[in-house]
Amino acid sequence: MTIFEKQKKRALEKLRIGGADEEIVGIIEKINSFEGFFTTSSCSGRIVLISIPEIGAKRAAKFIGKWHRPPVSREEVQEAIKLKGREGITEEREIWLLSQSPILHVACRDLEKAKALLRIAIESGFKYSGIKAISKDGKVVVEIVSTERMDVPLGKDGVMFCSEGYMDFILSKANFMLERGKGKLKRFYSGLEELE
Amino acid sequence: MTIFEKQKKRALEKLRIGGADEEIVGIIEKINSFEGFFTTSSCSGRIVLISIPEIGAKRAAKFIGKWHRPPVSREEVQEAIKLKGREGITEEREIWLLSQSPILHVACRDLEKAKALLRIAIESGFKYSGIKAISKDGKVVVEIVSTERMDVPLGKDGVMFCSEGYMDFILSKANFMLERGKGKLKRFYSGLEELE
Repeated sequence: MTIFEKQKKRALEKLRIGGADEEIVGIIEKINSFEGFFTTSSCSGRIVLISIPEIGAKRAAKFIGKWHRPPVSREEVQEAIKLKGREGITEEREIWLLSQSPILHVACRDLEKAKALLRIAIESGFKYSGIKAISKDGKVVVEIVSTERMDVPLGKDGVMFCSEGYMDFILSKANFMLERGKGKLKRFYSGLEELE
Repeated sequence: MTIFEKQKKRALEKLRIGGADEEIVGIIEKINSFEGFFTTSSCSGRIVLISIPEIGAKRAAKFIGKWHRPPVSREEVQEAIKLKGREGITEEREIWLLSQSPILHVACRDLEKAKALLRIAIESGFKYSGIKAISKDGKVVVEIVSTERMDVPLGKDGVMFCSEGYMDFILSKANFMLERGKGKLKRFYSGLEELE
């Protein structure tokens, strides 16, 4: 067994896709069915609500809401913000609403495999994809990610700065992006036929 | 002259850094002073105001404001939105305020060079950096980019959805990100000493 095969075996043992969306489950299974590839992490795209002490201090971010399926309603978001208070999270933080692209990390046996995968990803609309790391043993990690993204600060220290009308507008955009990400995943799944 | 050297010569002939920020000028000059590297594009980070017909339709985006230096004031943004009308841009579009990380594209002679540059970029805080392309001749393009980012829809069809207080809040965040990006550029510049 090569080092790559051992790593793949371990990755597949740890893989849990029970709760994942069908769009991404199909992709994970397909990629892992090819000898030269295995997935290491994935998300089918989501809208999240986070509470942070300061920009960039992501390690200190607390998720107060996560949604993988559109449409997400204003009521759901408001409810999550209210619940946060009850869970004892102090109010002296900022609340941001983020719309995040689908994301996949795929380990590829070599650079040729990585380039083939990258081409399919970019052609499917995942234009921010790229190679994130190359190991000494030649393994290449490709990150597959798209341009749909929104990062909106909603409020600070318990005070929401945006009106309900504005939040409806933001959510209509976020839901649209989420939908669009799912469409790209479908195109990517079809594109994977070209791999060997 | 190798293919890489020819490409570098052409890139340097096209290079115009007259109007660029000092942080990025120093970096461009330093990178180009190394044999195995040349820069192909760069931006020191900015706050932009764009008008778009639909999310993702970036080709159709029109810039109605661009600022490379913090602090950007609410008055400047409001003035840019007003001017837009006079320039005959139809109102049936969305207006977004974006805070964009510094970005650099660097052509590297080979994979080893690319990996060395990537490591320095990531250690300087440009955590979203990665390899974007590998040519048949072995040249590798590295994209250097950081996580600071904000994408906020402000309004649609001529109606601004956000209040002045909210815009002040958004701009305080955007200015903070811009400042932070400049700091990372300084760290990156120092890190470049390690290249050969």
